[in-house]
Formats: sequence, structure tokens, C-alpha cells
Amino acid sequence: MSAEKSPGPPGEGEPRPETPFHPDLVWREEIIGARPGDRVVRIARHRYFRGTAPGTLMPRPEALEPRGGWARLWWRLRRLLIGEPLATFQEQEQRLNKVRALAVLSSDALSSVAYGTEAAMRVLVLAGVAALSLTLPISVVIALLLIVVAASYEQIIGAYPGGGGAYVVALENLGTVPGLTAAAALIVDYILTVTVSVAAGIAALVSAFPPLAPWQVELSISAVALITLLNLRGVRESGTAFAAPTYIFVLSIAGLIAFGSFRLLTGGISYTPTPAVSTTATEQLSLFLILSAFAKGCSAMTGTEAIANVVPVFKPPEVRNARITLGLMAGILAGMFVGISFLTTRIGIVPDPTETETVLSQLATVVVGRSWYYYLVQFATLLILVLAANTSFVSLPRLLYVLARDRHVPRWFGLRGDRLVFSVGIIVLAILSVSLLLIFSSSVDRLLNLYALGVFTSFTLSQSGMVSHWLRARRDGWRWKSIVNGIGAVATAGVTLIIAITKFLDGAWIVLLILPILITFFLLVHGHYLYVAQQLRSARPVRPRGRPPMVLVPVSSLTRVAREALAFAEDLSTRIVAVHVAASMEEAEAIRREWPEVAGDLPLVIIESPYRLLLPPLLAYVDALRETHPDDILVVVLPEFVPRFWWDNLLHNQTALRLKAALLFRPGVVVASYPYHLG
Amino acid sequence: MSAEKSPGPPGEGEPRPETPFHPDLVWREEIIGARPGDRVVRIARHRYFRGTAPGTLMPRPEALEPRGGWARLWWRLRRLLIGEPLATFQEQEQRLNKVRALAVLSSDALSSVAYGTEAAMRVLVLAGVAALSLTLPISVVIALLLIVVAASYEQIIGAYPGGGGAYVVALENLGTVPGLTAAAALIVDYILTVTVSVAAGIAALVSAFPPLAPWQVELSISAVALITLLNLRGVRESGTAFAAPTYIFVLSIAGLIAFGSFRLLTGGISYTPTPAVSTTATEQLSLFLILSAFAKGCSAMTGTEAIANVVPVFKPPEVRNARITLGLMAGILAGMFVGISFLTTRIGIVPDPTETETVLSQLATVVVGRSWYYYLVQFATLLILVLAANTSFVSLPRLLYVLARDRHVPRWFGLRGDRLVFSVGIIVLAILSVSLLLIFSSSVDRLLNLYALGVFTSFTLSQSGMVSHWLRARRDGWRWKSIVNGIGAVATAGVTLIIAITKFLDGAWIVLLILPILITFFLLVHGHYLYVAQQLRSARPVRPRGRPPMVLVPVSSLTRVAREALAFAEDLSTRIVAVHVAASMEEAEAIRREWPEVAGDLPLVIIESPYRLLLPPLLAYVDALRETHPDDILVVVLPEFVPRFWWDNLLHNQTALRLKAALLFRPGVVVASYPYHLG
Repeated sequence: MSAEKSPGPPGEGEPRPETPFHPDLVWREEIIGARPGDRVVRIARHRYFRGTAPGTLMPRPEALEPRGGWARLWWRLRRLLIGEPLATFQEQEQRLNKVRALAVLSSDALSSVAYGTEAAMRVLVLAGVAALSLTLPISVVIALLLIVVAASYEQIIGAYPGGGGAYVVALENLGTVPGLTAAAALIVDYILTVTVSVAAGIAALVSAFPPLAPWQVELSISAVALITLLNLRGVRESGTAFAAPTYIFVLSIAGLIAFGSFRLLTGGISYTPTPAVSTTATEQLSLFLILSAFAKGCSAMTGTEAIANVVPVFKPPEVRNARITLGLMAGILAGMFVGISFLTTRIGIVPDPTETETVLSQLATVVVGRSWYYYLVQFATLLILVLAANTSFVSLPRLLYVLARDRHVPRWFGLRGDRLVFSVGIIVLAILSVSLLLIFSSSVDRLLNLYALGVFTSFTLSQSGMVSHWLRARRDGWRWKSIVNGIGAVATAGVTLIIAITKFLDGAWIVLLILPILITFFLLVHGHYLYVAQQLRSARPVRPRGRPPMVLVPVSSLTRVAREALAFAEDLSTRIVAVHVAASMEEAEAIRREWPEVAGDLPLVIIESPYRLLLPPLLAYVDALRETHPDDILVVVLPEFVPRFWWDNLLHNQTALRLKAALLFRPGVVVASYPYHLG
Repeated sequence: MSAEKSPGPPGEGEPRPETPFHPDLVWREEIIGARPGDRVVRIARHRYFRGTAPGTLMPRPEALEPRGGWARLWWRLRRLLIGEPLATFQEQEQRLNKVRALAVLSSDALSSVAYGTEAAMRVLVLAGVAALSLTLPISVVIALLLIVVAASYEQIIGAYPGGGGAYVVALENLGTVPGLTAAAALIVDYILTVTVSVAAGIAALVSAFPPLAPWQVELSISAVALITLLNLRGVRESGTAFAAPTYIFVLSIAGLIAFGSFRLLTGGISYTPTPAVSTTATEQLSLFLILSAFAKGCSAMTGTEAIANVVPVFKPPEVRNARITLGLMAGILAGMFVGISFLTTRIGIVPDPTETETVLSQLATVVVGRSWYYYLVQFATLLILVLAANTSFVSLPRLLYVLARDRHVPRWFGLRGDRLVFSVGIIVLAILSVSLLLIFSSSVDRLLNLYALGVFTSFTLSQSGMVSHWLRARRDGWRWKSIVNGIGAVATAGVTLIIAITKFLDGAWIVLLILPILITFFLLVHGHYLYVAQQLRSARPVRPRGRPPMVLVPVSSLTRVAREALAFAEDLSTRIVAVHVAASMEEAEAIRREWPEVAGDLPLVIIESPYRLLLPPLLAYVDALRETHPDDILVVVLPEFVPRFWWDNLLHNQTALRLKAALLFRPGVVVASYPYHLG
């Protein structure tokens, strides 16, 4: 192309209908207004785009800002709340080192010591205060179980550095349905982690400040809202916010256990239960009751899988870092859990039946009094628990992304927002957990009845999957590795069964009902996407018809908007017909009289409608045209009034909208909305 | 055109793109598949249409039935509930003769004797039982007022045979704002007529069968639903249903008054108030109290205007028939009202403070005992009252139609449904009156505090308008006529003032608040329609641009639907550009590699979107194209997935819908939805 032939920048002369479109041209001249020869300079000057390669544009920040008033306000508000957009290439920077990862990913597991011991005690106390002496042995068993499960997960991290956890492991080694079962179980437990943690955190706050008790539900919901916002901003920033509380909590609990043990040994502790406590047994100390206490105490183990699920968020070397973090976490958790159970049992603390003071708060009061250290413990407990909910906000959206990638959930779960996070998953999780908090009035004890079943189901499936993995792969060390995972599988399967049986009537039935529903949903969605994909793949070549489409212009009155729609139709095609539905012969005559002046010799069909119906005769005419021209596309040009304000819609457009909705279901009919703007 | 050139019926050969469109052709061949020479026969055979004149089609019943499953079910259900559609030319048959008109249009006025006397008594009794003796004189004053107002309306019927009542009269003679004030006042009172009448009718039922008392609200709502259905079927059928109860009511009340007077004269009646009645005075018998009683009694006069508003529904000669009916109605009403007040006062009946038995029921019990005649009276009262609400269902939609014609309310109030009634007005009235019944718990006494103010406002405005009318027209008899209307205007203005003052705190303030809001709404709607009409009238000739539009095809992946959309674009124009928004360079490369195979040399622009945003870069590109080509129309071809089931929408189309919504607000951009149907 020579410089002479090239036209000037836009706006200098007439539009150039003869200029053929071409990517380079679109990029250089049509859009950018560049002249040949000074390409780079001119390109750099365009407001919205710069060119990065022939036919390739990169939008500038100005292009991304909405140009409407309300939309711009919403955009600004979003920037304020969740920050500036992050580019895809910035992703690597968002990864976590071990110190941050321990804080972000372990808060769920570590924080459960705040309610784990108490949960077991609340069951045991039903058989009288004497039964509470069983708390320590039950806790030791749970700690051993934790070591077994953690060892199993260390192997999963090595075998699956891509993350994905139970779903991926079960899917690859056991099949689709076990994989989806693991996914459904994890989804249920992630949601419950948010609710249990937040409810327990607010319980810690209320223990320290009893006047806050009436606002327990409102406080819980506010906490969920805060966590949601932090997560919509993105994972690294939440890491920074979360690192401190986790470490303060671990250190303060360690100090409490150490100081408490010292005072026990030196004999300086005395405790009398509050008078409100009923010490009469309501049940026999049966095996069922002991297993129930064990099942409820197992809620302390939820969160163990978190690290293995998200190995790729670690800084390289990912596998090594993840393994070290998991080991640290399991050790700290087991130590704190057994330590608290030991102290509580030795001192003889009895859980408060009104749920206004937690066992941990009682323990701290006995050991250090209502000193600054007591408030430090309570505050750290609040923070780690409320923020432990964050683990789910990291894990659930990632699990949903994996499911969306495999087409088991709607694909918008797989889209990343402008801050690189899976926004839809985060928002759905927030809505569901707030609903649960409302339904269960933020009661930890009631929520715990639903908890842990899901996570142990997924433990069992992933360990079984690993056994099958080692048996098939038979790489070095497969014998030893399959034994480790085998022990894990058998142990967790047993626990799953115990939880399902002992908590069935108290709430586990809800989970057992939801799991098959979720799995069915996954399978239906998958079937749908497969069907659509197969339909779209069809290799049959599609060629233009080589003739302009038929164009139908419904005309209600001969105003300017009708004239414009007809003129547009004439630019589209030579095969045009206008149609008017007349409620009376007088109206029909008036339109026919005016017609030649407005539309020249364009053909006009008038349909009489004695019943004053508008849509049915119009649709019948469209159907008749489709029948007689089965190989043509029919374009219906529909003038659409663009409202200045939303309430203008009440005065206009009803008919156009209904017609559009009806035409959408007719194959071969394209609805072209010709906008009509006032003023 | 010769027979040789004419192609066969559709389906026999190839489609004929070269055939030019022409109305005759569309009618005869393209749609109907007729051959020249056997026009009528072939036309008569088409399933959906028959031709009535060149270029004019008449749909057959088959064309009007929806072809979708759910839509067809809804259509059938509607036919079952409200009957077959009525054609416009069937309208004349729907007119009323005098006998039917008296029943349909007077039920509101006549039925108010059921609560008018009681309303005044409930105020008077506050000053002690002795004050009840004032009931008769107050009733006589109201009856005289009724004669004055009826005489005024006789003149309005003569001067305005087109109907429209207070709104039209005030508008033409006093100006826009007085006219709209009258309209707003009438609207408020029409809604209240429905609620008061239905509530009073159910009160009559409950008086006869006290166990029904707990379901008073539910019974009232069911009655409104029944009336709504009858009115959606159309006015004549409701006339048939309503004629009998009105006449039974009038005759049974006349009999009651006659028999009661006879027994009074022969001294055979004794009455003691029920023990529950408190006979102690709570207020002084002040002028204010007497005026309050008068104001509340005036509710008996509502409905007097009904006949003058709808003169055109009478059979010819409309004016004469309407006048006779109005005179009959006023005479019957005055007689019954004074008669009931006379008997009640003489017998010494005291209203029941618990509102479980009406005064009319007490009167009937005293006069005829709980005989068959008592139940006849109660049942006739129930029927005429519940059906009196029908007057509003005839009048309000007609008033709204007139307002819509004058562009003071949204134009859908002016559209007649397939049964020739103004369906929207009927449905809106039903919703509002059910709401009021719920708010006021169906209590007649509380509802009456809002009542009558609106109707007397409209009385005053229409009489004043008539005075102005006679003074300006000065046709024969103008002096006498202006005196009659002048007396009416002064009297009704006085009553309006009395009602506004005495009932202000009890509820009239609500009406005085709503009137200006309604008037403002009318004026705003009018301003909007005027503005739009002025914009649309612009005589600037609109010519085709003479070149095909620019076509933009957003492409997300190179599936069959993208291929079809591109092929369609090629049929539309030669100025096409496809655009793909790529989240990564790998994705961009993949599309560019595949492109030539799919789309040949069609230009493709790739926009990189490092923030993974889809809509903003696309919209910026559209805006850039609009800037560089300000004189062109830009057609955006948007493939739209047509769901098989509504829930499929959750899995698809989100992006297309959001893009459509954003593009709608951009002048010069036409969105063409290219449908993609599966299977």
C-alpha cells in the first residue's frame, strides 16, 4: 500500500466504504488513525489501545474504565474495596513462602484446638462429670490419628505436586464417581469450616466480653463479610494479614500450656465449677457415648488436607516447602490439642451448659486469671478462628476451578476475576456460610454435628486412591508407601463410619442427603457440556449463502424511528418486507395511505387483527416466512427505545421485549435491535 | 406475471433469492404459495392466513394459538377462565339496556344504604344513645343533597354524551390540573369503593353466620378475585350475573321498610339493645360531631357519578337511557336510605361496638325475626355489596383508558385485551384493593374514613366545570342550567370541606397526600410522552446510507457457532471484522493459527487482555470503531445459545447478555442475536 492511496486520519473526510477491512488496516488506520511510515508513534497516541503486533491490540487502562455514570461509580468502589486489577503475568508474585503458608493454610487445623477438646467434653459430660476423665485418652487417640493422616498426605504431596487433593487423587485412581464424591464431601466441609470457625471465634470474644452475647449472629456475619473482602483482594495480601495472629495464637497457647503445667506440678491451682453447672448424669457412659465424643473431637482434624490441595501456591521448590509446612502443622496441632486436654482434665474443668463461656476461656482464667495474658489468649483465639475460615476461601474456589475445568460445575466457577482470584466461588461460599450461620444461630455445638463427616469421607477416598496408585505404579518404595496410605485409609474409613453413625440423628443425615444431590448435579452438568461440545465440534464446513438475508421490519407507526429502521434494512438487504398489525381497518388504511411517502416502493404487508392481538399474528407471519424459505436467514429489525432512566422502561419497550423473547426460540431468525436514542 | 414464470408452491424447488419482494407477491406466493389465476382457492388453503385484499392478511384462529408447550397451556387456561377472544367489530353487542345498566351501574350507589345509616350512627353514639335521634334529620339532608347532585349529573349526561365524567368536564372547562385532580380523586374513590363494598358485603354475611367471623379478610379477598375474573370476561356477562341480586336487594329492602312501618303503626315492635352495648357517652354532642356523622353518612352518595361517566355503554339512544336510569337510581336510593334511617331511629337500634352484627341485620331481626325473609335480606345485601365493587371494575379501567389516550398514564392502560376489556386497569384495581383489605383488616368503619372525600372532590370539580361550560356556551336554557349546577357545586364544595376537616386525622390525610402525588405522576408521564412524540415526529428525511453496515463478530472460540455467525456476517456486508479477546498470548497464537482454515481471509483483530477482562476491552474496541466511523451503523453479531430448558441459561449466555445490555446504550450500534440451537 502506497502513502498516496492511504487516506488521512478519521474525521478529515468522508467515511470510506470502499476501503476493504484487513487486520493490519484495522490496527493501523481504521482504529488507530496512523499513517504508513510513522506507525509506532501514531499507535502510541491512541487513547484506548496500543498495537503490540500486526493485528494485535493491547488495551490501555483508560479503555477498561466504564464510560457510563453508574458503572464508573461501581468500578471505582470495587477498586477501593478489592484493589487495582492484576495482570496474568503477575501471578508468580502471588505465591507463598513457608512462613506465610503456615499462617494462611494451617489456621483451620491449628485453630480447631479452640473447640476440639470442648466438643468431646460436651458429649462425655452427659454421663456425668466423672466421665470427663476420658477426655485425655480420646485426645491422644485423635492426635495419633492425625499423625497417620499427615503421613499419608506427605506422600500425596510428592505424588501430586499439581494439587487438587482428594478429588484429583480419587478421580485418577478410583474413577469418576469416587472423585466427585470426594469433591462433594470437601465442598460441604469447606462451607462448614467457615461457619464453625467464625462461630467459635465469636464465642471466644463473647467469653471475654459477655455483654456482646446478644449480637453473636450479627458479629459472625460481619466477620464473614470481612474475610470475603480480603479474599476478593487476593491471596498474598490475606497472607500478610493472617501471619501475625496465627503465630501469636500458637505462642500464647504454648505459653498457657507450659505455665499451666508448671503451676499444676507446683500444686498452685484450685478450681470449682460454677454453680450453674448440672453435675447429674443424663445418660449412661456407653460405648456409643465414648465413640460420639471421639467423633465430635475429630473435628479438630479438619484442615489437615488443606496444604496438599494447593501445592502450587507455594514458592518453588513447591513440593519440599509444602511437605515441611505440613509436618510443622501436624506437630504443632497434636501438641496443642493433647496439652489442652491434659490441663483441662487435670484441673477438672466442666463445660458451661449455657455456651456463654468456652472451655478454653475457663482454662485460661484458672491458669492466669483475668490478666492481660487471658485477653491475649482470647483475642488470638478470636483472630485465628475468624481468619481460619480463610482456608476455605482459598481452597473451595480452587476446587471449584478444578471442577469447572473438568466441566462438572458451570464454567463461571473457573473464571478468574481482575485480582486473579476465583471471585464467583468466593462469593458463593460467603452466601452459603452466612445462610448456615443464620439457620444455626451461630451455635458451635449444633454446627459441629454436621462437621468432619465430609472431610473424613475425602480422607478415606484419597488414601484409598493412593493405595491403588502405588499398587499400579510400583515405583521405588511402593510397598512401604502403600502400607502407609493403607493404614491411613483403614483408620479414616473407620472414623467416617463412627461419625456417620453416632452423629446421624444430630445432623449428619443432612450431609448424607446433600452428597448424592451434589454428585448428581456434577454428572448432569458434565453431560450437558459434553453434549454441547459435541454439537459445536461438527466439522461440516459452513459457507455464506451468497445472498443477502430476508429482512422483516415490524412497523407500528410511521415515526422517525420506523423510517430509520427501514433505511437500515435497505442497507442490509434488497429482500425487505415491512409488516404492520392493524387493530382496525381505518388504522390499516391510514398506514397504507402514508406508506409511499415514507418508504417509497418498499413492500408493506398489513395483518388485520380483529382481536387486537399483536404478537400472535406477527409470530405466525414469521413462522410462515420460515416455512416458505427454509434455507434463508430471516433478520427481524426491531426498533428498541433506549431509556434515559430505568423507569422509562415502564412506558416503552414491553412489546419489543416480548417479541424478542418469542423470536429467540425460532431457529434461523436473527433479531437485530435497532437502538433509538432520544435527544 | 405469467403462469409460466410463477414458481410452484414452497418446498417443491430451490428457494428463489432473485424474486423481488412485493406486497402482492408476499401475499400471494412467498407466503401463501398461490399460483396466479387460482388466487382465492390457494389463499383459502393456508394454515395461518387468508388474504382479504392485496397486501392484507387476516390470521386464522390457528395462527393465534401459541406453538410452545407452556405458552399453549397458559393460552388454554386463559380461554377457560375468561372465554374466547372477542373481535373489535363485536363491540356493539356488548352494550347495556336500561334494566341491565341499572343493575351494573347502580349497585355501588344503591348498596351503600347497607352501611350509610350505620356510619352516621357510629359517630353519633359517641355522644350517647340519645344522640342517635339525630340520624333521621341527617339522612334527610343527605337525601336532599343526593337529589341536587343527581340533577346536576342529568345535565352533564346531556352535555357530554361521550362519557368521561368529572375528568373530561373539569379538563375541558377548568383546565389540565383541575381535570387531573378530578381524575386522581376518582381513582382513589374507585379503589375504595371496591374495598368498602366487599368488606360491608362480607360483614352482612358474618352478621347472619357469626362463626365465619375469623375468615372475614380471606372471604373479602376471594370476593375480589371472583369479581376480577367476571370483569376480565367482559361487561355484558357480568351484567347478566348482576341484574338479579340488585333487584332482589331493592325489593327486599322495600318490603322490609313497608312491613316495619306497618308493624310500627300497629305498635307491634319491641327492642332492647344487647347487654354488650355501652350506653355511656364518651364525647360531647358538639357541632363537630354532628358534622362528622354527616360526613360519614355521605359515603352513601358515592357511585352517583357512575352512570354519567360511561354513557357510551348504554344502548342507543344513549343519552335518554342514561338519564332515565340515573333518575330511577337516585329516587330508589333516597327512598331506601331515608326509610332505613326512619325505622332504625324509631325502633331505637344501637350499633354493635364489636362490629360483628350490622345495623341492617339488627333492624331485619327486629322486624321479621330470624325468618327466611331475614336471610333473604342478608344474602341480597351480601350479593349487591360484593358485586357493587363491580361498578369500579367498569369505571376505573375506562377512566384509565381516557387518561392513557390523553397520555397521562402509561399507554398499556389504554390497550384492550382479547375480551375487549381494559385488562391492565382491571388487574391493577384488583391488586390495590386486595392490598387495602389486608391493611385495614376488612373493617368497614376504618375504611369509611378514607372514603367519599375523593368522590366529593370530583363532584365539586365537575359541577364547577359545568357552570363555566354554560356561562361560556350560552345555549338555550343556560341560565337555569347554570343555576342548577351552581347549587350543586356550592353544596358539594361545602361537603368536601366538611369531610376533609372532620375526617382528617382519621384517615382523610392519606387521601390528601396521595392526590398531589398522583397528579404529579400524571404530569410527568405526559411530559415524557410529549417529549418522545416530538422527537419521533422530526420530519428530517431518512435515507439509506447506500453502503452495507460495518459488521463486528466477537469470536470466543472457533466452534461451529462461530463459523455460522461469520458466514451470516458475510451475507450481510463486505465490511467485516472479527475480534477475539485473549487472556494469554498462547491462546491468541492458537486462534491466529487456526483462523485461515476457518474464516479464510476475513480480518481478525486480537485484543490481549492481561487482566482477563472480557467486556471492557470489547466495549472499548466498539467505541473506537464508532469514533472513527461516526456516520456508519455498526452491527455486532452476537451468537446466542438457545437453551433447551430455562436452567441451561445458568450454564451459558451470561457474557452475551451482559454485552448486549452494555451495547444497547451506544447509539449507532445494532446488536444482532444470531441464535444457536442445539441438536
